Amino acid sequence: MQPTRLSILGVGLLGGSIGLACRAGTKPFHIMGYGHRRASLDKAREFSAIDEAYDDPAAAVRESDFVILCTPVGQFLPILRQIAPALKPGALVTDVGSTKRSVVRAAAELLPPTVHFVGSHPIAGSEKRGVEFARADLFDKALCIITPTPHTNPEALDQVESFWKTLGMRLTRLTPEEHDRFLADVSHLPHAVAAALIGMQSDAALALAGKGFLDATRIAGGDGGLWRDIFHDNADNLRDSIKRLRDQLDRLDRLLDPKQGRELSTWLDQTAARRELLLRQKLGEVTPD
Amino acid sequence: MQPTRLSILGVGLLGGSIGLACRAGTKPFHIMGYGHRRASLDKAREFSAIDEAYDDPAAAVRESDFVILCTPVGQFLPILRQIAPALKPGALVTDVGSTKRSVVRAAAELLPPTVHFVGSHPIAGSEKRGVEFARADLFDKALCIITPTPHTNPEALDQVESFWKTLGMRLTRLTPEEHDRFLADVSHLPHAVAAALIGMQSDAALALAGKGFLDATRIAGGDGGLWRDIFHDNADNLRDSIKRLRDQLDRLDRLLDPKQGRELSTWLDQTAARRELLLRQKLGEVTPD
Repeated sequence: MQPTRLSILGVGLLGGSIGLACRAGTKPFHIMGYGHRRASLDKAREFSAIDEAYDDPAAAVRESDFVILCTPVGQFLPILRQIAPALKPGALVTDVGSTKRSVVRAAAELLPPTVHFVGSHPIAGSEKRGVEFARADLFDKALCIITPTPHTNPEALDQVESFWKTLGMRLTRLTPEEHDRFLADVSHLPHAVAAALIGMQSDAALALAGKGFLDATRIAGGDGGLWRDIFHDNADNLRDSIKRLRDQLDRLDRLLDPKQGRELSTWLDQTAARRELLLRQKLGEVTPD
Repeated sequence: MQPTRLSILGVGLLGGSIGLACRAGTKPFHIMGYGHRRASLDKAREFSAIDEAYDDPAAAVRESDFVILCTPVGQFLPILRQIAPALKPGALVTDVGSTKRSVVRAAAELLPPTVHFVGSHPIAGSEKRGVEFARADLFDKALCIITPTPHTNPEALDQVESFWKTLGMRLTRLTPEEHDRFLADVSHLPHAVAAALIGMQSDAALALAGKGFLDATRIAGGDGGLWRDIFHDNADNLRDSIKRLRDQLDRLDRLLDPKQGRELSTWLDQTAARRELLLRQKLGEVTPD
């Protein structure tokens, strides 16, 4: 069986974990890794996440059947420009970015028509950075959002979905627009709010923080540059999400009126019940409707 | 050695854990438990969290040296009224409430001068409810905030602090006013925001939630009635905390301007670094200044 020639552009936590997960499967892969830091490339090779190391993305994709963009979202545009002339006809390109409209649009504009792009967003990761935190099971049972458009090649779509399935992922399809709107609510806003919750604390208050505060703000531990890219790329949706969070806080403010005791406890019970249902769904105990 | 006669009023997660922690220590205790649900009292006795069960708080404190209020904050006032005539001269009373101004004020007004009250807030717990989740080590190494006033009896203060120390707690002192202000920022607001983050989601967005969202909203899993009491009791401070969170979100909104890229990533990096420092302090790796 001929190994799939796979290029991982960006060998951090996600790129490294893809490499390790490919090794753990039954299909053979030959993996080219690109990174702009020598140390990351060396570590990725040491951990067997990649076979070959490149500091030039074009060189890393020249022989490749399948290319995955794993850098921060803000580097997708320059990297697509660099790899466009080097890609083999028939090569597949996908990504792991947390926003989808911009990369889908850029790929359609910049890649040659002989190459097929399909947007992906595996919902997996951690606030940790770097290939040293990569894990072969990072994607196992997690959800991968695929964002085809009316112009997506059906065979390419099928192959990209098959790839994530071999890594153990569950799949769902959304348009790039739906993806960016929903993720603003359920991922980018919670990150922004966690950062705001830390930013507003006095040292005296922070000294009294318990486990609840640490859990609630864990997501804000991520890399600033990486999240800046995501926030700027999805700024319109994030602004709308912030607005709707403000509406909820306005409602809470009204419920702090002592006369609204019953309504306040009902609201708190309803949100607690909704989270409990979500938790059970995520644990696979309940099938969502 | 004569056992300390201890009354635990409210045998849920916190009250039950106090009982279990007392058993695990070397000093002897005889524990009277009060609860308004027979099932909780039976379970508390079955788990040896209490020795005697009462459905009347006055009866539960009549012979007691040391009384701890462990019910939801909203029940402190009626319970103080009920136990006031039954308390022995020299009895000590404390509590585990998440707000401190109201209980300190109520105790000063309602308890006889022969009885000494000292406010306590052990920063320990979980979103789980009920004595079945009680743990003997719940308080171990956690922080207990003690809120004396100029009128607090120094000997009583010393005895209450010694009690929490025997349960393995670290101690800090704040005025009731400082306590309620800081806790609004670092505990009540994060809870309110977690509830708002759940409340604003569409089902479609919620279906895409990852581990980050579940962690960020874990604290909103608590009991609605219990948190309503806390929110109403500390409404003035919580409103101020909400206002300051809004200021942070306004700032973020401005930083979403593409021209503010450097400022946005600096802000995100600073908040991430602040959380990292907090985490290391909590893990005991770094001594706070």
